[in-house]
Amino acid sequence: MNKIGIVTSGGDAPGMNAAIRAITRVACSKGVMVLGFERGWDGVITNTFTELTPRNVGGILHLGGTILRTSRSPNFRKHEGVKKAAKVLEHNQVDGLITIGGDGSMRGALELCKVSGTKVVGIPATIDNDVYGTEESIGFDTAVNTAIGEIDKIRDTANALERIFVVEVMGRKRGFLALTIGLTVGAEVILVPEVPYTIEDVVQTLETNRNKGKRSGIIVAAEGIGDTYKILKQIEQAAGMETRMTIMGYSQRGGSPTARSRLLANLFAEKAVELLINNQGKCMVGLENGEVTCTDLKTVCNNEKMLNLDLLKLAKTLAT
Amino acid sequence: MNKIGIVTSGGDAPGMNAAIRAITRVACSKGVMVLGFERGWDGVITNTFTELTPRNVGGILHLGGTILRTSRSPNFRKHEGVKKAAKVLEHNQVDGLITIGGDGSMRGALELCKVSGTKVVGIPATIDNDVYGTEESIGFDTAVNTAIGEIDKIRDTANALERIFVVEVMGRKRGFLALTIGLTVGAEVILVPEVPYTIEDVVQTLETNRNKGKRSGIIVAAEGIGDTYKILKQIEQAAGMETRMTIMGYSQRGGSPTARSRLLANLFAEKAVELLINNQGKCMVGLENGEVTCTDLKTVCNNEKMLNLDLLKLAKTLAT
Amino acid sequence: MNKIGIVTSGGDAPGMNAAIRAITRVACSKGVMVLGFERGWDGVITNTFTELTPRNVGGILHLGGTILRTSRSPNFRKHEGVKKAAKVLEHNQVDGLITIGGDGSMRGALELCKVSGTKVVGIPATIDNDVYGTEESIGFDTAVNTAIGEIDKIRDTANALERIFVVEVMGRKRGFLALTIGLTVGAEVILVPEVPYTIEDVVQTLETNRNKGKRSGIIVAAEGIGDTYKILKQIEQAAGMETRMTIMGYSQRGGSPTARSRLLANLFAEKAVELLINNQGKCMVGLENGEVTCTDLKTVCNNEKMLNLDLLKLAKTLAT
Amino acid sequence: MNKIGIVTSGGDAPGMNAAIRAITRVACSKGVMVLGFERGWDGVITNTFTELTPRNVGGILHLGGTILRTSRSPNFRKHEGVKKAAKVLEHNQVDGLITIGGDGSMRGALELCKVSGTKVVGIPATIDNDVYGTEESIGFDTAVNTAIGEIDKIRDTANALERIFVVEVMGRKRGFLALTIGLTVGAEVILVPEVPYTIEDVVQTLETNRNKGKRSGIIVAAEGIGDTYKILKQIEQAAGMETRMTIMGYSQRGGSPTARSRLLANLFAEKAVELLINNQGKCMVGLENGEVTCTDLKTVCNNEKMLNLDLLKLAKTLAT
Repeated sequence: MNKIGIVTSGGDAPGMNAAIRAITRVACSKGVMVLGFERGWDGVITNTFTELTPRNVGGILHLGGTILRTSRSPNFRKHEGVKKAAKVLEHNQVDGLITIGGDGSMRGALELCKVSGTKVVGIPATIDNDVYGTEESIGFDTAVNTAIGEIDKIRDTANALERIFVVEVMGRKRGFLALTIGLTVGAEVILVPEVPYTIEDVVQTLETNRNKGKRSGIIVAAEGIGDTYKILKQIEQAAGMETRMTIMGYSQRGGSPTARSRLLANLFAEKAVELLINNQGKCMVGLENGEVTCTDLKTVCNNEKMLNLDLLKLAKTLAT
Repeated sequence: MNKIGIVTSGGDAPGMNAAIRAITRVACSKGVMVLGFERGWDGVITNTFTELTPRNVGGILHLGGTILRTSRSPNFRKHEGVKKAAKVLEHNQVDGLITIGGDGSMRGALELCKVSGTKVVGIPATIDNDVYGTEESIGFDTAVNTAIGEIDKIRDTANALERIFVVEVMGRKRGFLALTIGLTVGAEVILVPEVPYTIEDVVQTLETNRNKGKRSGIIVAAEGIGDTYKILKQIEQAAGMETRMTIMGYSQRGGSPTARSRLLANLFAEKAVELLINNQGKCMVGLENGEVTCTDLKTVCNNEKMLNLDLLKLAKTLAT
Repeated sequence: MNKIGIVTSGGDAPGMNAAIRAITRVACSKGVMVLGFERGWDGVITNTFTELTPRNVGGILHLGGTILRTSRSPNFRKHEGVKKAAKVLEHNQVDGLITIGGDGSMRGALELCKVSGTKVVGIPATIDNDVYGTEESIGFDTAVNTAIGEIDKIRDTANALERIFVVEVMGRKRGFLALTIGLTVGAEVILVPEVPYTIEDVVQTLETNRNKGKRSGIIVAAEGIGDTYKILKQIEQAAGMETRMTIMGYSQRGGSPTARSRLLANLFAEKAVELLINNQGKCMVGLENGEVTCTDLKTVCNNEKMLNLDLLKLAKTLAT
Repeated sequence: MNKIGIVTSGGDAPGMNAAIRAITRVACSKGVMVLGFERGWDGVITNTFTELTPRNVGGILHLGGTILRTSRSPNFRKHEGVKKAAKVLEHNQVDGLITIGGDGSMRGALELCKVSGTKVVGIPATIDNDVYGTEESIGFDTAVNTAIGEIDKIRDTANALERIFVVEVMGRKRGFLALTIGLTVGAEVILVPEVPYTIEDVVQTLETNRNKGKRSGIIVAAEGIGDTYKILKQIEQAAGMETRMTIMGYSQRGGSPTARSRLLANLFAEKAVELLINNQGKCMVGLENGEVTCTDLKTVCNNEKMLNLDLLKLAKTLAT
């Protein structure tokens, strides 16, 4: 293993830069050269990269986003694009590639493995935390903390005005963010795509709370549950309570990574380089049972990570 | 002046608690008793209050919201309500009343002055910063800082993904928040209710920027400019760029007050108590030319604070 | 199990309030009454408590400190004190007690078990993270994040002024905080009580860095390594570089708990109540291999948690 | 005015980068070229600079520190150094120079004016806020907010443990930071270099508080009042209370600038460029009576800014 490449693809996540820095410094400490491809898979296809050195990755550990930029590359979704990428890697004598991203990136990595001799190791980095094979992805903890910081502020006004607030958090298909955020802010109602709900249930909960003396409330909803604004209007009408809306949006993606996102980035990076140096590939590093592990990319791509419904139940008990 | 009352009314603003604490401690240090009416004007009308003492206002200086709660009281908008409030104040021998809130609160205070012997002094506290007679209201600085913290995070992703982001901030009628936020985050476009705009202008600016090499951009829009989501869709279509939306919502209202919001709260509170002790009323304290001043409530209610359009021009120059 | 008590003792940790809220709400949902003893073991000895209900623990989830207050109780270190506490618990018909705190609290809990029929379950909550039987304590993640937020700011000035900064973080006997903080801020040098060091080593590292072009540097030192100020002076003299000092102190203890500290608080609380309801005691809940577990209090008190020296090695590689 | 230079000198302050960006963009919009000298006056003396353009100052608005780096230049304190700097400016045809920094920088600017034809305009940027001719310097508001964020956290523990905490904040000669911080955190005692104090007074205040039921307390002390640690020990002994120490240090200097620090940076930058374009110099921009003004550098250097002792009195009343 003389030369490895790094790609950040898909949506960005806080801690990607920490991972880039850690990969570079660990690899260089073992005499391995590092290339950083720009703008996700597009940079591989178009052969656009910079050499990364311990010095030029200095000062990025705490920055959100990714210095390599990222993109959702339509070209790479076609077989031609994947073959082109394989050729570019071969041409540059890149023996190993580390792809940092979410499940889309892992599927891309698996496709690449099929046509390329380059060993590929994935590092899960997505605020959605929906990648199979790891309990936690880089960036998830940061996104959760950003959201709870904001929702704690909304709680101030909810209490002062005695109103209901709906907060839409990210999560088009999965409720990992919504569940953890809802549990840790003490949301009165948590709505996730995995669990069906009715407006009646929601209104019932709010009314029960009102009878108990809780005159304000926070509803945390994943964007994937449908048109949140419409739901808010329905709740407003059914419950006869004024409600207010916040769409957290992309502020959840950015910001300086938390300690935990940085730590995962460091540990995953170390493991990924180590795997490549041992000539292993077609796998993704992850956190399982508190240990840094390695899972076959096929297993990662063919399985769906399940939401912990016990946590949802606990959240309900705690919001009584 | 033996007894004064405090009312927080309208929307809450960070620093209201700091003002409550300061009023109480300054008044008590002069031998004046303090009553805190609950839930805005409703608490006056329904005679619901607690005595505030230096001890029971301890530990609230840094808390968002208002311990007295607040409400928008429909009853107080009717003459009967105002008369009822005046009676309650008289009944409790409240010689002076300090109303903490936005322009609605000041209009309420003025109405009360017409029928009540109680001296009334207003303290401007609103994140909208749209009260005539003061350069800055309690809470404005906090709301601006909350917003820029979030938008700085969105910038991370904007840069990583090279996209356009629209951020809707508060301000139904006025653009004070949007302008200061836009200027201090370096927004590429700032849309305020006071200044007409066209989608073409916005698209033109974004395209000029793209030609200059700026591939991402932030549009800060006051909620009062119209349906932000629709505008986003129009920009997307006209500019052929993917755009994303964040509605900041009520997190701007909450949170621990900044140093400046706390300082204003302290200074305004001191001045308000001093005015009452000197038997003055029917006025609002404020900050003008860097000094704590006092303006007649009629002047406050009959004038409109103007947006500083020079700042908007500066913001444009700085976002080039 | 009809009635349980809660004690927070020793130093406070962010998330203690989240644990108090969660214990109360889980217990009450099972029909168990909850008493909150005040000021640590002193409150048990002096029979000072409040009944905790789902309503009066509302609004505390996100607050630092502990609403029950805490103390280091010299009385409880004597056998008489422990016996007195046992009697008070018996007198109040407290069937189960949950003690929230660090290793001192766990030793106290073990002593109490020896003389009392009350079942006792410990919940580890200490920013020091030095309790055997759990990978992480409530509050640790918050303290680490507070510190890295501050050190990221110091890095701004370190880079601008090109100087060396020494930051003393908490940890009288153990280096868990210093290690995790140092690793996640990219400290050039990490000094922990567990690993001997010489001034020469430190100076050597700084000089090597300077030769590589790193003109600034952060040294993270646990308070337990000795007189940090003296060490700073020695480094300054030996390296001929101006250095600056920050003692982080008690700001690390406070602040709103992070998502992870809140989550641990919720999970530990749920488990602790469940154990008591199943009539189990003399144990501490904890996190091991990513699972919430339960360890005998004797094992907790008779073993020492070890620092992960591999992390220290990784930190060195990453700071190159 | 065809070409202007920028120097950041002395200690860094949050918002210096915002000023650099604003100067560059305003100047370039008027067709003026901008050079950024590196490492303070040293960069002028050694002729080390980069051309600054609207593009290369992008993305720095929200960053602490200064991209131009800074230093305290011993060479510039000698007349030879000043003459050398003047020559370098002449050689590069720099018609105008903007110096961003504290009172040391302003004195340097005044010296330069004596020997150089280059027009010099100062921008006050120092967290100490001790420059005559402006009510507020760039960075002050940020430093205050950083400190109050930390002290609010210490208050959590102070309340939980019922102890006295001493927090040393910056300010070797002046108490502007300590006073504003102390007032806005509600410190029980504020110690500034300008006002003599005795240990007896401090102990008396703490005891009075204890008798009133305040069992914890925060003492905010400027570093300039003497050996804070010794003072802490004296208080501990005299009052028989356990006390704890935090030295805030350089984290106060760094961090992302607040809205207000950014706003001042923008306004001062605009004014400074405008002055140079109008061929004015030997002056410093500032904020007086809420307006951006311009003061002769001699007046700036020959006068001492006074602490507002009324605020100290108010702080005492508010901490009762």
